[in-house]
Amino acid sequence: MTQPQVPFDDRGLAYGDGVFETVLLREGKPVLWSYHLARLRRGCQRLGIPVPCQEALDATWQGIAETPLEVLKLIVTRGSGGRGYALPESPMPRLLSRRTPFVPATARWQKGVTVRLCRLRLGHQPALAGIKHLNRLENVLARGEWQSADIAEGLLADMHGELVEATSMNVFWQRQGRIYTPRLDKCGVAGTLRDALIEQGIVREATLPVAALPTLERLWVANSVQGVWPVITLVCHTGTQKQTWPLEPVDDFQVAAHRLLGYAAQ
Amino acid sequence: MTQPQVPFDDRGLAYGDGVFETVLLREGKPVLWSYHLARLRRGCQRLGIPVPCQEALDATWQGIAETPLEVLKLIVTRGSGGRGYALPESPMPRLLSRRTPFVPATARWQKGVTVRLCRLRLGHQPALAGIKHLNRLENVLARGEWQSADIAEGLLADMHGELVEATSMNVFWQRQGRIYTPRLDKCGVAGTLRDALIEQGIVREATLPVAALPTLERLWVANSVQGVWPVITLVCHTGTQKQTWPLEPVDDFQVAAHRLLGYAAQ
Repeated sequence: MTQPQVPFDDRGLAYGDGVFETVLLREGKPVLWSYHLARLRRGCQRLGIPVPCQEALDATWQGIAETPLEVLKLIVTRGSGGRGYALPESPMPRLLSRRTPFVPATARWQKGVTVRLCRLRLGHQPALAGIKHLNRLENVLARGEWQSADIAEGLLADMHGELVEATSMNVFWQRQGRIYTPRLDKCGVAGTLRDALIEQGIVREATLPVAALPTLERLWVANSVQGVWPVITLVCHTGTQKQTWPLEPVDDFQVAAHRLLGYAAQ
Repeated sequence: MTQPQVPFDDRGLAYGDGVFETVLLREGKPVLWSYHLARLRRGCQRLGIPVPCQEALDATWQGIAETPLEVLKLIVTRGSGGRGYALPESPMPRLLSRRTPFVPATARWQKGVTVRLCRLRLGHQPALAGIKHLNRLENVLARGEWQSADIAEGLLADMHGELVEATSMNVFWQRQGRIYTPRLDKCGVAGTLRDALIEQGIVREATLPVAALPTLERLWVANSVQGVWPVITLVCHTGTQKQTWPLEPVDDFQVAAHRLLGYAAQ
């Protein structure tokens, strides 16, 4: 399969000047599509990039599914042009996409995962917070902190020590029976599963210092492609174990989230 | 001239996972080449990207010059591969380059420029500060704040209100006869002209709250391609004039910097 290409002067390559989406396709149909479209539009508007038309966006997933589940990755860049950082007068955004077969890590749904607290702290930039833009070096550096396959994800705090997200997932926790996720107004990516869970009233936004992580009743990492992984072990970046949680026989949060994604209850 | 291309899965496009250099070529030879190489290496090392070999880097400028001055743009990405943000086990970096004819804005050397204080504040991220990585959305957003051709550059402060840089240049100021430039340990790009000026003892690092800008004796913006522009007018982001400086008959700082770049004294 030939990949789409972008030229040297594309601003997505030059400056990370664009946004992307990673969408679960079930039998060729996008899951949580309206949430992905909403975030893509929000990102384009924030950056002043014209939003590709609905037909072009829909065309990225129309076609025959090769496997029951696929991942569709979409990239929208501002295109070429402009002098240096200056914006082109008549931007011609590029929309690129690719579909790849996908199998979720179901063992992680059932057995839970070990996560690690990353050393890197996310910087604050309200102008870019929440959107899924192409400037992802912080995530790359954080993910580069560990190699062990035993560690499923890394938790990220901001410069003030507040929990923000995992490197490619959002974070959720339970306290006094209620489920929360970090506010993402200063940094972090607002996932579409997170958006849907908030909209349904299942989750609410809150702040949590990472120092309080061991006091939580339960902890999960989740996104719209992989679903929900219960955290059973938290290690700090030195590898020292900080906390463990027992695996619950019935995980209502996971069931509710997986219903949104079309994953059958375990 | 056909441009080099990168595939969809190149990490430079996907995440801004790479670095770049913008180099002045004079009669086909790179100016401040050792400083550009040093910064490129520093950037690759910080990101854990293997540094391209010297021969490959030199090959980007070897060839016949079409015009007396050109700009060489180099991009080094981590290449393709890795699962999501996870680093590829055996990274195969991509080195891309392009040369374009260049004519400096000499009127700005002689007549000075108007700069504007940008609304956007740079976020702190010490892990990425100083290097010229491909995550440049802050610069793009800042440069997008104005369209008027009368404004040559935008000054950027950090979240604490300290002066950092201009959107594509470094900033220098004079106080009590001495010349300073902002420390770049929390954000900003350390320019090669700035590096050379510090190494030569012409400039030293300091901090400056933007509120103190009107009290400076003199102010300049500069980079290794355009040279040094004396600032004669500073406007705030609402367009209100904050300060003016007279144009000096002899600008020793500009003369010293232009000597490093091979630009004749005015």
